[in-house]
Amino acid sequence: MLYFIGLGLGDAKDITVKGLEIVKQCSRVYLEAYTSILTVGKDALEEYYGRELLLADRDMVEQEADEILKGADVSDVAFLVVGDPFGATTHSDLVLRAVNAGIQYRVIHNASIMNAVGCCGLQLYNFGETVSIVFWTDTWRPESFYDKIKKNRDLGMHTLCLLDIKVKEQSMENLMRGRKIYEPPRFMTVSQAAEQLLEIVQNRRERGDDLAISEETICVGLARVGAEDQVIRAGTLRQLASCDLGGPLHSMIVTGHLHPLEVDMLRLSAATPDALQDLRMTDSSTYTS
Amino acid sequence: MLYFIGLGLGDAKDITVKGLEIVKQCSRVYLEAYTSILTVGKDALEEYYGRELLLADRDMVEQEADEILKGADVSDVAFLVVGDPFGATTHSDLVLRAVNAGIQYRVIHNASIMNAVGCCGLQLYNFGETVSIVFWTDTWRPESFYDKIKKNRDLGMHTLCLLDIKVKEQSMENLMRGRKIYEPPRFMTVSQAAEQLLEIVQNRRERGDDLAISEETICVGLARVGAEDQVIRAGTLRQLASCDLGGPLHSMIVTGHLHPLEVDMLRLSAATPDALQDLRMTDSSTYTS
Repeated sequence: MLYFIGLGLGDAKDITVKGLEIVKQCSRVYLEAYTSILTVGKDALEEYYGRELLLADRDMVEQEADEILKGADVSDVAFLVVGDPFGATTHSDLVLRAVNAGIQYRVIHNASIMNAVGCCGLQLYNFGETVSIVFWTDTWRPESFYDKIKKNRDLGMHTLCLLDIKVKEQSMENLMRGRKIYEPPRFMTVSQAAEQLLEIVQNRRERGDDLAISEETICVGLARVGAEDQVIRAGTLRQLASCDLGGPLHSMIVTGHLHPLEVDMLRLSAATPDALQDLRMTDSSTYTS
Repeated sequence: MLYFIGLGLGDAKDITVKGLEIVKQCSRVYLEAYTSILTVGKDALEEYYGRELLLADRDMVEQEADEILKGADVSDVAFLVVGDPFGATTHSDLVLRAVNAGIQYRVIHNASIMNAVGCCGLQLYNFGETVSIVFWTDTWRPESFYDKIKKNRDLGMHTLCLLDIKVKEQSMENLMRGRKIYEPPRFMTVSQAAEQLLEIVQNRRERGDDLAISEETICVGLARVGAEDQVIRAGTLRQLASCDLGGPLHSMIVTGHLHPLEVDMLRLSAATPDALQDLRMTDSSTYTS
C-alpha cells in the first residue's frame, strides 16, 4: 500500500494520530520536499516520528517514481506531504503510476492552506478561483493573476493568493555549467506580493482600464498559518505592502464582497486600529450590509 | 484558552496529535453536533479520547455560549468540530464572543471536505464558489445553486456542492405543540442532489434558457471522504442520479473545464467502464486538451 499522508501546517505534532501510526509501521517513509515547507525541518520530524525520512525532491518524484513505488505492492510505503496531499499541489502523477503498477493507495488527509485560510474569518464558500503570484524578474512580469482576481471580485468572491516559493534554484552560471549548486530558498512575502499587485493596478490605471482593485481594497496577509506564531493582518492593499509578517510561509487574500460577520472577524486582525473602522465608507464597492 | 479543534473527516484517529494532547488536558470538552457528523459516534470518540464530551447543539452554541466560555479565561476549554473549525461552517460568532470576553482562542486545524475533495483528482485551485443544495419540499424548490454552478462553469471552474443535512428537525405538529421531539437525521444523497439538478435542467430547457449543464455533464459523487469505506464515482449527471453510494455524508462536484490529468484521475473512479472513455466527444464543451 502507498500511503499519501498530509502533515498539516505547523509542526511535527500536526500529523493525525492515524497518520503517525502508519508512518511508524511503513517500510520506507518519503518526505516531499519541493512544494512547501513545514515550520520545522526534517530533523525535527525524524526525531518525533522515530523514523528516518527520505527526501523526495521534484527530480526524484518525476524521474525516479519507480524507486518510491518499489515494493509498495507487498509492503507499506508512506509519502509525506506538508498540508494535504491533494491541496495546492496534487500528486496525481504518482497516484496514476501506482495504480498502473497495480499498487493500492490511500490518502490520510490533513489541513492545508486551502481550507485553514478560513481562520481569518472569511467564509471559505465565498472564495473563487485560487491564484498563484510568482516572483517577477526583470524580463518576466506576468499579470495574469490580476485578471483572475478581477473575475472573482466581479462575482463578489474573495481570492486566495498563494505566494511563490523558490527552492533548488540554480544561478544561470551554475545551470550552464551543469553544476548542481543551489541558491538558498526564497519565499515571497505578503509585502512583495502587495507591491507587485500595486504595480499592476498602476499599469492598468495608466491604460485607462476599469479597475477591479485599488490601493484601498481590503486584503488579508497571513503568515505561518497553523503555527504557534501565526500572524494575520487585515488592511488595505497599500498597508499590506509595507507590513512585515516575519518568516515564511506567507499567503494573501484579496477580499470580494464582505459580509458583516466577516468584517467583524477581520477587525480582530486589523493592521492599524482604524484600518477597518470605516470600511463602509472607504471601500463601499466591496461591502454591502 | 478556548481551543477550536478540527477532528477531520473519518474516525476518532483523524484528530491531530496536537489536538489529542489538548483534548486530554482541557477542563471541559464540547463536541459541536449540528453541522456535520463523523462516521463514528460520540461514544467512540469518548472512549478513544478517554474524556467525557459535552454535546453542543445549535441552540446551545447560539443561546448558551456563555456556558461554553465559562472559565476559559483561567482554564482550558476545547470545542471540537468535525472537519476543520473554519471549514464549511465557521464558528466566527463564538470566536467574537470569546474575544469580547477577554478569552484567548487558538485553532487546531484539520482536513475538511473543502480541501479533502481534492482526492478525486480535480485540482483545488480550479474550483469556484462552493454551493449548498438543500432538500426541496412540495412548496419550496429553490434553484439558486444552479445559477452559481452556471457562473462557475462559464469561467471553466468546478463546483463543490455541499448536500443538505437535517438534524433535530421537528414535525409541523410537534413544532406547533412546542414538543421537543425530533425526527431522525436526514442526509441528502448524491442521487437525490443529481435528481434535483436534472429537474432544474429540464425546467430551464423548457424555458428556452442557455443551458450551462446537461444530463451528460461530468459530475463526481463522493461519499464518506477520508473514511475507510470512502467512495468516489465519476460519471454523467444522469448516471449519478441512479447511483447508490451508501451511507452519509455525501458531496457532489459539477466539473468545469477538465485538464487531461484530471480526466485521467477521474477515470480511476468512473461510474461505468466506458463512462469517461470518450469524454472528448461526449462533453466537448467542458473539455479541451
